[in-house]
Amino acid sequence: MPKVTIAQNILAVNDTVAQEIRQVLAIRGIRTINVMSSPGAGKTTLLERTIERLRGELGIGVIEGDVETTADAERIEAAGAETVQINTRGACHLEAHMIRDALAQLELARVNLLFIENIGNLVCPAAWNLGEDRRVVLTSTTEGDDKPAKYPHMFAASEVMVVNKLDLLPYLDYDLAKAKRQALAINPRLRIFEVSCRTGAGLDEWCAWLTAFVHGDK
Amino acid sequence: MPKVTIAQNILAVNDTVAQEIRQVLAIRGIRTINVMSSPGAGKTTLLERTIERLRGELGIGVIEGDVETTADAERIEAAGAETVQINTRGACHLEAHMIRDALAQLELARVNLLFIENIGNLVCPAAWNLGEDRRVVLTSTTEGDDKPAKYPHMFAASEVMVVNKLDLLPYLDYDLAKAKRQALAINPRLRIFEVSCRTGAGLDEWCAWLTAFVHGDK
Repeated sequence: MPKVTIAQNILAVNDTVAQEIRQVLAIRGIRTINVMSSPGAGKTTLLERTIERLRGELGIGVIEGDVETTADAERIEAAGAETVQINTRGACHLEAHMIRDALAQLELARVNLLFIENIGNLVCPAAWNLGEDRRVVLTSTTEGDDKPAKYPHMFAASEVMVVNKLDLLPYLDYDLAKAKRQALAINPRLRIFEVSCRTGAGLDEWCAWLTAFVHGDK
Repeated sequence: MPKVTIAQNILAVNDTVAQEIRQVLAIRGIRTINVMSSPGAGKTTLLERTIERLRGELGIGVIEGDVETTADAERIEAAGAETVQINTRGACHLEAHMIRDALAQLELARVNLLFIENIGNLVCPAAWNLGEDRRVVLTSTTEGDDKPAKYPHMFAASEVMVVNKLDLLPYLDYDLAKAKRQALAINPRLRIFEVSCRTGAGLDEWCAWLTAFVHGDK
């Protein structure tokens, strides 16, 4: 099965680069979070709200992944973080070599928390190690409560799940308990946060976790 | 660039199989639609509502693609269509050989409209020809109005765009005119339908288009 061998080689090369990135970031004391979700779940908005709350306390950097456009990097920069945009021009996930190139363009001296916003895709990014310390899967109430069961690899690969758009619950048939039950059945160690980036609900808890994580408590 | 060559070969093999599928379906007079979207945009719900409305008039078959679970095939079968489930076990898109295998399991004698529900993914499925007659990209208001610009390949590869979840517009900052303008800038020939699968708004127009399409008028 030559196709499988090729894929494994590509992933092995990726893992080697990811390991180099992990070492470089560890030496600098930078903690890194890879944020993954479907398109439109609210990754950029979550980062905007997070940066606004934590920028006085932490040095935050963001590597913005998008297939096309620099719109998200502009939003993140306006929120007050060091930002580099990666455009994959069609590719469906970020790979470690893209992160290595982006890091060369970031002013890292003041950064102690680095977010990587992955391509909006609930499948492919799960397979690609980027040298991150934690993986966060963001899911939104409008996507339906069946997403953990239908896209289990992403939820198995993550340490944290953030449920966004809680403010829309009254208008949806979304069963939050069911979504959490499904996610925990796949990955019992998953830390779950429930937020609304629009109203701000739940963001204090998420930001407290991030601060503790940067200070080495999580 | 050996990596690019490999990818091109895989796509060329896929195109050959897709061409065979297209011929087989054309001989049988079956018209085929490949439905693509982000996870949770409402592909299965759109098909349920469509089948309920058209099952007296048309013979409808569905090939259901999911990474895992048979939940969607069960919903579609309950709505009254011939259904086969494909589970990709991690793969992020359907390929033509999967459709060929699924067709062998479908009772095609009574089918004149075949839907293929692709994996929830706004990137990868755009590159894979499945032998379909039309490609429909479904986008929902809750994903944000910037999706055409951020995922242009999918909108360029489709002939039809369906905007779903119109009923949630009052609770969102979604600019429908902007989303349509972006989509038409990428693909001026795009036929656009605006629907709410929850309230039924816009489904008459969509179903009228499908019926005319099956009868060869579109």
